[in-house]
Formats: sequence, C-alpha cells, structure tokens
Amino acid sequence: MTLPHPNADQITLPIVLAVLGDPTRLAIVRFLASKEGVPMNCSKFLDLGSKTNLSYHLAKLREAGVTRTEAVGTNRMITLRRDDLDRRFPGLLDSVIAAAGDDKALPMVGAAEIEIGA
Amino acid sequence: MTLPHPNADQITLPIVLAVLGDPTRLAIVRFLASKEGVPMNCSKFLDLGSKTNLSYHLAKLREAGVTRTEAVGTNRMITLRRDDLDRRFPGLLDSVIAAAGDDKALPMVGAAEIEIGA
Repeated sequence: MTLPHPNADQITLPIVLAVLGDPTRLAIVRFLASKEGVPMNCSKFLDLGSKTNLSYHLAKLREAGVTRTEAVGTNRMITLRRDDLDRRFPGLLDSVIAAAGDDKALPMVGAAEIEIGA
Repeated sequence: MTLPHPNADQITLPIVLAVLGDPTRLAIVRFLASKEGVPMNCSKFLDLGSKTNLSYHLAKLREAGVTRTEAVGTNRMITLRRDDLDRRFPGLLDSVIAAAGDDKALPMVGAAEIEIGA
C-alpha cells in the first residue's frame, strides 16, 4: 500500500509552516532530522501521544510534504523530505530544526517500540 | 493605548510557525520585510480582506511576537519584530521571507489607504 504524498512542486509554504506550527510535529521533525535520513519506524513516536493522535500528526506531516511514509510489511517507516524541502524553501528546514533543537518546551521522542499503523 | 505584546523571550517557535502558516499573514510579513523596518499604517493591508478579517490577522501576528502594533493618534502602525525574531530563531525569518518572495500564490498587498483600527 502506498499512501498519498504531494509532489515536490505541490508543497506550499503556508501549509508547511502551519503543519510545523505544532509542538508534537516539531518534535517528530527534530527527531527525524537527528537521524540524517534513516527511515524511522513510527513506533518511535509513541511517547508523543495516543496512536490516534500520533496517526493524525504523521498524516498532517505527510500530506504537507514534510515527511514521507512508506509501508514496509506491517510497519510504517517515516523519513524527512529534506531534499524536496531544501529545494523548495532554501534554509527554512535548517533554521526550524536549529530553533527546535534548543527548545526545551518541545516534547522529547523516546524509545517506545510498540507497533502502530499510521 | 498600548496593545499587549509578548517579550522577546516569550516568543515560541510553534506559535510563530503556526501564525506564519497562513497566506494572508505571510503576505503581510513579506510586505513589512520589503519596507525594511519602516512602520506601515495598517490601512496598507486592506486589500487583503475585510476590516474584521484583517484585524484578526494583525492581532494573531502581534500576539505571536511577529509584529509590533503601535497606536499613533487614531492610526495603527505595524512593524516586523525582525531583531527579536532573528535573535530567537536565527535565519528563520529570512528563509520564510525568501520563500514567500517567490510565491505567486500569496495575495499581494496593494495601496488601499482607508483607515482601519487593528
């Protein structure tokens, strides 16, 4: 199963900013950025909220073009669309990640390992 | 009359991003940035919507710490809080303004000159 993603040229600035304007989603993006492109199992993010809540946030990120979600067996693997975002909005993601990196008010992503569908 | 503004250290990343994640507010920020710190009468933004709608957007920008609104007589003068934002989130505002500068989908700020309260 392939979930829908916008093409790079369909990614829009207002929607990316609006989607990043949430502490849980910023925490997910900060964590993905720290993994330098390695796809993360979405179960990594279960500390951030209920499965329903997390699925909602992961869908918002995917639909905005911020992340890519790929189904691998029964898992969902999440990556940051760094190349697409850097091409569309140079410097934006780096400045957001740098600002989020210093932000003690954002939730931390832990190491919960339960499976989840997103 | 002085409208309430957050101190620089009360400005938070999620709220700034959420507030910038709107085409009308991005158009306002892009226009203010093009004026290099000169306060703009809020009547400049009347092309962007009704007075009520515009007052709402200007209040959101002010409350997030993105803009400063000062009452000068019966006018409201708006400036971008560039120094505060650059100190809190280095590079963020510049990358947003650069991305918005190229964005044909954002509304344009024209030269309507009617007075408005915001």
